[in-house]
Amino acid sequence: MKPVAVQSESYDVAVVGGGPIGLACAREAERRGARVVVVDMGEPGAWHVAAGMLAPVSEAEFGEQPLLELGLESARRYPDFVASLDDPGYLEVGTLVVARDNDEAEALKRLAGFRAGLGLPVERLRPSEARRLEPALAPTVRLALHVDGDRSIDPRKLVAALKRAFGGEQRRDRVAALDVSGERVTGVVLASGETLAADAVVVAAGVDVANLGMPEGARVPIRPVKGQVLRLRDPNGPGLVERVVRGDVAYFVPRGDGRYVLGATMEERGWDKASTAGAVYELLRDVSEIVPGVLELEIEELIAGLRPATPDNLPAIGRGTLDGLVWAAGHFRNGILLTPVTAELVGCALAGESLPVWAGPADPLRFAGVRA
Amino acid sequence: MKPVAVQSESYDVAVVGGGPIGLACAREAERRGARVVVVDMGEPGAWHVAAGMLAPVSEAEFGEQPLLELGLESARRYPDFVASLDDPGYLEVGTLVVARDNDEAEALKRLAGFRAGLGLPVERLRPSEARRLEPALAPTVRLALHVDGDRSIDPRKLVAALKRAFGGEQRRDRVAALDVSGERVTGVVLASGETLAADAVVVAAGVDVANLGMPEGARVPIRPVKGQVLRLRDPNGPGLVERVVRGDVAYFVPRGDGRYVLGATMEERGWDKASTAGAVYELLRDVSEIVPGVLELEIEELIAGLRPATPDNLPAIGRGTLDGLVWAAGHFRNGILLTPVTAELVGCALAGESLPVWAGPADPLRFAGVRA
Repeated sequence: MKPVAVQSESYDVAVVGGGPIGLACAREAERRGARVVVVDMGEPGAWHVAAGMLAPVSEAEFGEQPLLELGLESARRYPDFVASLDDPGYLEVGTLVVARDNDEAEALKRLAGFRAGLGLPVERLRPSEARRLEPALAPTVRLALHVDGDRSIDPRKLVAALKRAFGGEQRRDRVAALDVSGERVTGVVLASGETLAADAVVVAAGVDVANLGMPEGARVPIRPVKGQVLRLRDPNGPGLVERVVRGDVAYFVPRGDGRYVLGATMEERGWDKASTAGAVYELLRDVSEIVPGVLELEIEELIAGLRPATPDNLPAIGRGTLDGLVWAAGHFRNGILLTPVTAELVGCALAGESLPVWAGPADPLRFAGVRA
Repeated sequence: MKPVAVQSESYDVAVVGGGPIGLACAREAERRGARVVVVDMGEPGAWHVAAGMLAPVSEAEFGEQPLLELGLESARRYPDFVASLDDPGYLEVGTLVVARDNDEAEALKRLAGFRAGLGLPVERLRPSEARRLEPALAPTVRLALHVDGDRSIDPRKLVAALKRAFGGEQRRDRVAALDVSGERVTGVVLASGETLAADAVVVAAGVDVANLGMPEGARVPIRPVKGQVLRLRDPNGPGLVERVVRGDVAYFVPRGDGRYVLGATMEERGWDKASTAGAVYELLRDVSEIVPGVLELEIEELIAGLRPATPDNLPAIGRGTLDGLVWAAGHFRNGILLTPVTAELVGCALAGESLPVWAGPADPLRFAGVRA
């Protein structure tokens, strides 16, 4: 049965997706004076699973220079971004990156040199110094880097805070398609058949971009990359570790209340979101080699999320091929970190301003005409 | 507020606890002509977590001769017991007990000798022979015993089948206390305040025996022993292993439909039922060393149960110190295996018949006067 077309409302901006990026973009548009609606179908996205590390340098691999610049821009904006939010779960805790053997130690030394070359503070610690900061570290740790400037945030708290702070309309519905007239986006069509008219549409729908109806040539191709995490709880309260601890594979992120997120796998498995024995085993093995006390914790939740990745693994932020279409998509492993800078860039794009040069690698037009 | 005492019903037998043992005892009493009520509070007990191995010899340690005899008696009764049930989840699959190193191989050889001394069939297999039976076994397996006569049952299906088969009354309520008059049990007092009068009361309440009001000298002391398991699922369906596979610590029990139970820890931690990182890690490590393919499975459930154990770890089956009180309690790791024999012995006790000599070690009167 074809849904009955009903046009009920008209907005300056419709945002598809009510995760942290969609809500932050909506707030930014609202701040600039727009009448905004956020449409979200109520099934939490990758943010619900994410650990929320704000660690642009520890995260960026060699050769990911464009991503690193976006990450650094966003990390700089985080203090102001969270200052206006009530209980966003922001922790100023720093990161310890640890090596268990000589190979990992050599890699850490290269990372330290890379950071130093960027003029970024990083401190190389001997094992005894690292254990003075975090006594729960295993005696087998060979070398550690202390990145005091890293931060973390609880993405579930962040989304709740953004929902409370956003003054516009929030609709719980699925967006079936963009409403397109010629080369122009004129709103969104809901699964119920209702159309919301909007002068501009921001697409911040995570992996669900792949299921959003639109002209194929206008699409940013998005694939899901599965990440499994364990959410753990110390019945004795906080204190096992104070800082984020990263090994070669696993990271262990304290929430400050005795809860921890242990992540994460990177799996190309389509839309599968099952927790698997192998992933849980390997994450526990890797983290227990650097923080043995993790094995005393309770498992509160096994969960997997789907990171939205583009073909070059860089995000798509800014205007698309259709007039009125603005992308805030494809953030892969960096959605939480890149939330503030994405909102700012989307605000510029909505206002017709040109984006700064460092945002060029995220230009959605690099996918113009590519079929998903 | 003191509950208002209301006496509503009168029964020949009231059974406290609607797990497999309580329901099997209720059915046996019913078969002997009694009017029976089963009272269960609806919170699943240890059976809900149990793997349901029916392996009296693999399970019995040296020195547990009394338990072994009870187990063998019960295993012999299982085919008849399940024959009258609809879909009890009974599988005639056998067990492979495997050794990963020389120490474990020596222990297996002793177990094989022990079984042979009892006149029980057991087959020693070379690694290549074992892998012919179960190709998923790791190449590192050193020795295996094939216990073809072992069986398994799905305790959740068993309880569902017993509930359907039992013709008497089933009440969902908590039994707060035994109703005692002088040295005689006259019924049970429900949490609601209602009293159910009964000529005899069968206590089959698992660890909740500890919370059941009764004269202290009449009590069988029960402590909880925590067991954690993982419930796994193969998205490719059944076939990874066909038989139960046991290592030194872990056991891996196929349900025949692509689902598996991996268990179990033995932890003296009071009433704590949390799943812990350490237990999950160790179970996955141990099983993956003997069946590496387990790491490909999905985790459907992490769950822990509390086994009801007496001070000597043997069950309490038969008449207690109070007239009209019959125990079916303290089955520890063997509740599922011992269900048929327990029902038969409870039936004899209710009828005033004397119990066979081999049931002597389970005599509840050995705890007479012991304070919990």
